[in-house]
Amino acid sequence: MTHPLEEGILYTDFYQLTMAQVYFEMGLHEREARFEHFFRSYPNYGAHQAGYCVMAGLQPLVEWMQRVRFGEAEIAALRAQRSPDDNALFQEDFLAWLAEHGDFSKITLEAVPEGRVVHPHIPLSVVTGPLAMAQILETALLNQLNFGTLIATKAARVRESAGEATVMEFGLRRAQGFAANGATRAALIGGADFTSNTGASIRLGLPPRGTHAHALVQATMAMGMSELDAFRQYATRYPDSTVLLVDTVDTLRSGVPNAITIFQELQAQGHKPVGIRLDSGDLAYLSMQSARLLDEAGFPEASIVLSNDLDELIIWQIESQIRQEAARMGVEAESVIRRLVFGVGTKLVTSEGDGALGGVYKLVALRDAEGHWQPAIKISESAEKTPTPGVKRAYRLYDERGVATADLLALADEKLQEQEMLELRHPFGQRRRVVRREGITLEPLHQTILERGVLREEFPSLGALRARRRADIARLDPGVRRLINPHIYHISLTPSLWTLKQQLIEQARAGSR
Amino acid sequence: MTHPLEEGILYTDFYQLTMAQVYFEMGLHEREARFEHFFRSYPNYGAHQAGYCVMAGLQPLVEWMQRVRFGEAEIAALRAQRSPDDNALFQEDFLAWLAEHGDFSKITLEAVPEGRVVHPHIPLSVVTGPLAMAQILETALLNQLNFGTLIATKAARVRESAGEATVMEFGLRRAQGFAANGATRAALIGGADFTSNTGASIRLGLPPRGTHAHALVQATMAMGMSELDAFRQYATRYPDSTVLLVDTVDTLRSGVPNAITIFQELQAQGHKPVGIRLDSGDLAYLSMQSARLLDEAGFPEASIVLSNDLDELIIWQIESQIRQEAARMGVEAESVIRRLVFGVGTKLVTSEGDGALGGVYKLVALRDAEGHWQPAIKISESAEKTPTPGVKRAYRLYDERGVATADLLALADEKLQEQEMLELRHPFGQRRRVVRREGITLEPLHQTILERGVLREEFPSLGALRARRRADIARLDPGVRRLINPHIYHISLTPSLWTLKQQLIEQARAGSR
Repeated sequence: MTHPLEEGILYTDFYQLTMAQVYFEMGLHEREARFEHFFRSYPNYGAHQAGYCVMAGLQPLVEWMQRVRFGEAEIAALRAQRSPDDNALFQEDFLAWLAEHGDFSKITLEAVPEGRVVHPHIPLSVVTGPLAMAQILETALLNQLNFGTLIATKAARVRESAGEATVMEFGLRRAQGFAANGATRAALIGGADFTSNTGASIRLGLPPRGTHAHALVQATMAMGMSELDAFRQYATRYPDSTVLLVDTVDTLRSGVPNAITIFQELQAQGHKPVGIRLDSGDLAYLSMQSARLLDEAGFPEASIVLSNDLDELIIWQIESQIRQEAARMGVEAESVIRRLVFGVGTKLVTSEGDGALGGVYKLVALRDAEGHWQPAIKISESAEKTPTPGVKRAYRLYDERGVATADLLALADEKLQEQEMLELRHPFGQRRRVVRREGITLEPLHQTILERGVLREEFPSLGALRARRRADIARLDPGVRRLINPHIYHISLTPSLWTLKQQLIEQARAGSR
Repeated sequence: MTHPLEEGILYTDFYQLTMAQVYFEMGLHEREARFEHFFRSYPNYGAHQAGYCVMAGLQPLVEWMQRVRFGEAEIAALRAQRSPDDNALFQEDFLAWLAEHGDFSKITLEAVPEGRVVHPHIPLSVVTGPLAMAQILETALLNQLNFGTLIATKAARVRESAGEATVMEFGLRRAQGFAANGATRAALIGGADFTSNTGASIRLGLPPRGTHAHALVQATMAMGMSELDAFRQYATRYPDSTVLLVDTVDTLRSGVPNAITIFQELQAQGHKPVGIRLDSGDLAYLSMQSARLLDEAGFPEASIVLSNDLDELIIWQIESQIRQEAARMGVEAESVIRRLVFGVGTKLVTSEGDGALGGVYKLVALRDAEGHWQPAIKISESAEKTPTPGVKRAYRLYDERGVATADLLALADEKLQEQEMLELRHPFGQRRRVVRREGITLEPLHQTILERGVLREEFPSLGALRARRRADIARLDPGVRRLINPHIYHISLTPSLWTLKQQLIEQARAGSR
């Protein structure tokens, strides 16, 4: 272990460790437990709300799980923890157990694969393993999967809004600290085409992308030269990938005309200029005016890269405005839109408007001394916050058109394939829906990622994850894909599971009286 | 270097590297440059806005700067980057220069020290060094200092709201991925007393804190035992630090009565019970009812830990509600409030409502071939977005009561101490204010952190950073500290600097025509 203490297995809430010791003293620490991880509602960005999420974060989580364990440094750190009365908080027998068994090598992790569409109340991941270690895993699992899914979801919305246009993730400088590399990866899974984050991009096998900054023009001008000189220096070095930032001085009176001069020089040398970047002002207006100038100069192919606090709604607004005003500006709307490239930063990598996915990790079953699974229940104030107990399976239902129509949780031993009719009950409340089994394709949602600590298959490539995301989103009802006011996707329980949940709630209530 | 590629010096935007190569070809790469890092507006959380920020993130940034450089892996990664026409993007002479000089050992970093109050438009940090490396540093500097300051600011607001109560940071599970450790540190600087983040806490020399989760009660109940059994197991293990989570089944009918039974047992054994935790429901109501039950049972000292999506406004609301309703509930408001402890998670570590501080990093001056500083300007669409050029010094002005009354930027060679009157001009717009020098204490805001790559002094302890924060906030006008609708703190330029800025804007505009 060469990682600092805070990046190892102690990347967890302290109570996981104190609880693990209580399990140890109760003799439950190696008892097989089952925890489910799910979220209760889609990200809500204030003025708008997601209708689906995209799963991400699994590979970073699993790599972390395989890298960390309780080593000497961790044991020593725990040994030093004292209670208020200055007693050792951790006993030597427990620490000895941790030193020997304190890793994730007995954990089985099932999950919805990365890149797939996911919905509330249906587990994104299911952890089975010794109670103590499954408990200690909670914090890091939530930290990685909640965040990955949050950002991949935002990226999918940006992708929805941008249509076929190229989207570049530019958020590293405003990402939440070292969250940036995870954000980049999730953004690329969810919908971004490229990123400016050099190290992360190269690690993912993708060429990093970028243009240049105002500083290049400023430095050149501070040395007594001009914006045109700065552009020329840049174009000389990158003749076949020249994208010029045109708003350091005056976009339409200086930047674009100077860019055109450089493009003419490049063309004369046999190169094809790539485009310009706009980073301030009224981006829709400036896009149209720049497009007109570029068209007139004979560069109808030159891209226009837009940046400056973009998100899915601003992209939508820019395209709408262009469609409304293009004729008046003397340009053709679709030809302007077709040349746009979107650089999306802060609002993508921080999921602006809703900066956390509220995923939780709940104990749903524990093996008793005879080896039988006993369901675990937590009764909260609201029906919505009471997790569904027991050992379950998750399915996605597709109708005859291949459209995903509902996600369904069933008890593990239910034989859904053999039923003529499927009854779908809302997880809380009384709503129900019955569908004929015949017309429905039932797809199990979970894959085994780790089987007792061993990776079942290599992690898929970024390309494979993106293909999965595209396929899954294509199978959504268009209403669910809407950026604003989406249709509510159906999530449901089988009647047997619904009934078990009600019974356990009643029992627990009765037991507490 | 044992770190993965994406955690080293390639943790930067790609354009920093392509621009650095252009500087190299222009012969400007080793020219001394000066960049300033500042933000333009306080975090705005939607319904409320900060009136000041608290600086943080410097130590993680500097540790990163001292750890990374262009090594073989980084050079090889850049060598492999190709243009669209499949030419090498980076030339061997530039790569050779990077291999030799590609580190931050020639960078001088001045900054407002961590823990201090900071305001818009006044540089938080100033980087001086070879243009190419100072450019490459931009991304990581913004990433670390923007985020640290964002979270320390949120923590300061939570601290303001919580008054003297203990605040525990519980956000690890919902933090934005690996941002969590940085968030924990910034939260502890800004106002949190303790954290549940075990590794980060221990590294900072602070005992990690926590209670227990619902899972402990659920696991016990799934094994046929009761909530009371779970509490007893926990209390037996941690007799002098027992905080019991009372809302797994039914807070007032099961959880609190069971906790009281355990507290009586602990008391009989000579231990002092610490308290209970409420994690759902109407926290104000449940606090009062629990307080009443605990009082009646003879535990008036037992703490009540509150958690569940708290932030500064919710804490404020809870305390207001208790003050309004306590009498009717048969408890004394202040005695309830005095026993509250706040566990603040998601909304603190993600800065809910405004998830990014918009700090920027702007070239303000560059040495010419004769070694003279030449100011650099960027003219943007708005006066507010035009950075102030030149080599400057930042001061804080205190009035005779010791209250911070304004921050002031001056040219480096201005002798403010010798002036009889000080004129403070708003950075943009025409507003001005004149104060008599005599009654004012002028404090230079920046400290040299790195001098040509060498750390000037050891990083201060967490305790020292917190003391700094407390002292600085105590010197703010109470209006500036308000959680909602704060007074606007004065930020200003000297007349000489204001005039230089206007002249350069005019020159740049003229030059572009």
